[in-house]
Amino acid sequence: MNDILTIGERDFTSRLFVGTGKFSSNKLMLESILASESQMITVAMKRIDMEHEEDDDMLRHINRDHVQFLPNTSGVRTADEAVLAANLARDCFGTDFIKLEIHPDPKYLLPDPVETLKATEILAKQGFKVLPYIQADPVLCKRLEEVGTAAVMPLGAPIGTNKGLKTRDFLEIIISESRVPVVIDAGLGAPSHAADAMEMGADAVLVNTAIAVAGDPVEMAVAFRLAVEAGRRAYLAGLGTVSDSASATSPLTEFLNL
Amino acid sequence: MNDILTIGERDFTSRLFVGTGKFSSNKLMLESILASESQMITVAMKRIDMEHEEDDDMLRHINRDHVQFLPNTSGVRTADEAVLAANLARDCFGTDFIKLEIHPDPKYLLPDPVETLKATEILAKQGFKVLPYIQADPVLCKRLEEVGTAAVMPLGAPIGTNKGLKTRDFLEIIISESRVPVVIDAGLGAPSHAADAMEMGADAVLVNTAIAVAGDPVEMAVAFRLAVEAGRRAYLAGLGTVSDSASATSPLTEFLNL
Amino acid sequence: MNDILTIGERDFTSRLFVGTGKFSSNKLMLESILASESQMITVAMKRIDMEHEEDDDMLRHINRDHVQFLPNTSGVRTADEAVLAANLARDCFGTDFIKLEIHPDPKYLLPDPVETLKATEILAKQGFKVLPYIQADPVLCKRLEEVGTAAVMPLGAPIGTNKGLKTRDFLEIIISESRVPVVIDAGLGAPSHAADAMEMGADAVLVNTAIAVAGDPVEMAVAFRLAVEAGRRAYLAGLGTVSDSASATSPLTEFLNL
Amino acid sequence: MNDILTIGERDFTSRLFVGTGKFSSNKLMLESILASESQMITVAMKRIDMEHEEDDDMLRHINRDHVQFLPNTSGVRTADEAVLAANLARDCFGTDFIKLEIHPDPKYLLPDPVETLKATEILAKQGFKVLPYIQADPVLCKRLEEVGTAAVMPLGAPIGTNKGLKTRDFLEIIISESRVPVVIDAGLGAPSHAADAMEMGADAVLVNTAIAVAGDPVEMAVAFRLAVEAGRRAYLAGLGTVSDSASATSPLTEFLNL
Repeated sequence: MNDILTIGERDFTSRLFVGTGKFSSNKLMLESILASESQMITVAMKRIDMEHEEDDDMLRHINRDHVQFLPNTSGVRTADEAVLAANLARDCFGTDFIKLEIHPDPKYLLPDPVETLKATEILAKQGFKVLPYIQADPVLCKRLEEVGTAAVMPLGAPIGTNKGLKTRDFLEIIISESRVPVVIDAGLGAPSHAADAMEMGADAVLVNTAIAVAGDPVEMAVAFRLAVEAGRRAYLAGLGTVSDSASATSPLTEFLNL
Repeated sequence: MNDILTIGERDFTSRLFVGTGKFSSNKLMLESILASESQMITVAMKRIDMEHEEDDDMLRHINRDHVQFLPNTSGVRTADEAVLAANLARDCFGTDFIKLEIHPDPKYLLPDPVETLKATEILAKQGFKVLPYIQADPVLCKRLEEVGTAAVMPLGAPIGTNKGLKTRDFLEIIISESRVPVVIDAGLGAPSHAADAMEMGADAVLVNTAIAVAGDPVEMAVAFRLAVEAGRRAYLAGLGTVSDSASATSPLTEFLNL
Repeated sequence: MNDILTIGERDFTSRLFVGTGKFSSNKLMLESILASESQMITVAMKRIDMEHEEDDDMLRHINRDHVQFLPNTSGVRTADEAVLAANLARDCFGTDFIKLEIHPDPKYLLPDPVETLKATEILAKQGFKVLPYIQADPVLCKRLEEVGTAAVMPLGAPIGTNKGLKTRDFLEIIISESRVPVVIDAGLGAPSHAADAMEMGADAVLVNTAIAVAGDPVEMAVAFRLAVEAGRRAYLAGLGTVSDSASATSPLTEFLNL
Repeated sequence: MNDILTIGERDFTSRLFVGTGKFSSNKLMLESILASESQMITVAMKRIDMEHEEDDDMLRHINRDHVQFLPNTSGVRTADEAVLAANLARDCFGTDFIKLEIHPDPKYLLPDPVETLKATEILAKQGFKVLPYIQADPVLCKRLEEVGTAAVMPLGAPIGTNKGLKTRDFLEIIISESRVPVVIDAGLGAPSHAADAMEMGADAVLVNTAIAVAGDPVEMAVAFRLAVEAGRRAYLAGLGTVSDSASATSPLTEFLNL
């Protein structure tokens, strides 16, 4: 299957993006990332802190010819802070890719639409490939497109809840209308959720918590990899429609008249 | 992963059962079955009609050392008809496995609990490995266990609707309480539904319509195969719990204090 | 609104049936029943124990010209036990109405379809007006009709869970096909669930836990009464269809061109 | 029940807001409004067009001592257009109340978060009581609060779809965090949806399509009135929690040991 996703002029054959937070050890994180076969890995600034040798060492095992680092701005609360953080991240990671996360509220970690739009506009002008984390807001997606976003990352459910595609009705509109790739972010708690997103026609999904906190994160990373491939293949193969009437799969002419 | 499902003393490494109805051609049906890597294939009596050479030829391509045929009794309306049909099927296919389907109503094709229990009891005594198609009725499952069923096959949604796990609350009880394998039958319209069923702890799923009517049935068969594996691995790896509160994946200490 | 429900030759203007279990006091139970304006009240045999004066006293306040007592067989596990219990209840309460509950499993309290059908047949022949508590199993409903049930009482969700209409897809079939009244029983946790059931075309609903365990049971009884009336009126008035496309309610010709 | 909702210094005893669009006749619209007992009626500028005597006449029947008109800005696409429209509406209707609707996309009619925030800030400074129609975006709600909104009106589902509370997870956060009244707008297709919103703790709901397109709009208006009251009473009375385990309502000690 020659099915390429292009974001910010870079090509991806994997449609599973993974995060690096919440793992119980760096070793487990690295093994899970490798097992996921992901080519887009979010990283927080804190995690590349140069003073901590161990962390740094862990990241060296990732082959950056094959894997794109996607630093995030987690922790910032305004567009100005986000722009500063993105520039620091560019220096630190040597990439123009930035996952823009602006969530002023520490309780629910939901994104700020206004500051996110503002920061996206500034960063796109500075040459960044911006992937903003947003509510599943179709109008906001169009506004982000207009200011040069590289993709949109609407959430499926509040971050860390594992609830799946609670924003389905709006994701469908976003996927139908978007001219940039749509990556479903946050809330995907099980491989079935990731398959579901791909079946709807999402371009990719980002998973972090569900892998990191699994009983066996490495196996769970494999499970998500398979599910994303399953969902993508199903989307391309063409799913049947949901129906309200039953339909027999076996001949119903009376059996004994055979 | 050495993860064996045993039904009726036969071992299966694949947990995807597939049906042979509704395909647009026998060639496509055969290719889809092979692509699914299924080891349990439902067949209707009609489909093995000896007078039609082509059909027969198609079934010869299936290696029955690796694949179990599961004849169904589709079309019967009473326990007596089912017992007769099962015995004909045993002669015809040379197997004790029987998928028991008793649905008197031709509109919704829903199973009859009373006749199904009666037929299961008779057939189990006759040495059949009975896999009855039933409502997601936990008490009926226990009754079927008591009379010697080889597995239970509760439905996820009305057959042919592609709606997924509409009976979730009852499937959870059945899976938790059952001492025989639980195979989710009917209503699984997308790979994500199959993954979902496996994540819940189902032992296997049966898919027919969703593969047969897909735009590309062979690719869809692959998608279901991957999804079932994904769901099974996720179940074994241990999924996180669904939560009502958000939870950050990245450090939230203020970024700029770094 | 002259909208009469007839069950067992008795007419009801209220479509809210209520139960008498789980209240923190008999006084609160009585007040809640009166506030609900229900005309069909389930009672357990235990609750009419003649040796306990207080209980007895409470039931005297109910005017049985306006209210039908519906004794239940809760606690029985087989058809035989149910038949015996029903006959005791008839003597005790002086009514042919019987709510048939046969649930052999003390954990989930789910009904046994086979024993329930058997007991319904016997009791109908003995002249009882049988209202059996069952799974939302459309085929079982038809079988119960055939043996003379007065109504069917499919569950919305496992009893006591307050989850609402989890069996919606099957309730819709039952309502569409039934020739006897359909009363949704179990799982209705909020007035919105009761309204939902009535909007679907259910003939009545039975509520117990949700009223009995409310912070203020009397107010909750009023809330359910209003919701049942709302749902019934909406059903009769004709609800719009659910749509996947947006539709403006206000003129969209550009405002400023006015 | 002395339960007052205050918005923009005006008190309301009804928590059902209704719209005036889509009715098949003005007479039916007026009768439905009266039957709803609503005290907050949205009106589009077009509908008060002075050149059309009939329309004007219809609106004279509404007693504005008891009913607040809520003109909307439907049809505008930017904050500037909205501010102009609001000022025209103030002159025309003699009220500071304004329902702010800015939806640049004519297909899905979804609101623009950025322009809505901008317009709310300007209009609040001009003394308007602003009720903005928005996505169920908790962060946007807080930003609107900061600039002086009188209430927030998050949508339940895309307008005109009748799908109910598809944004439930986010509405719960909004209701929990908001310091201004929360009015659920758009998508409420049945009385049960309105009851559901009120049970969650919403302060009010706005219904238009579901009443206007009902088979009998006047009866449907009554149904919504009852459902809103039911949901509000249930919220105040204290609903039980949803549970995963069954719980008997009747004594389960074996019946026949009585």
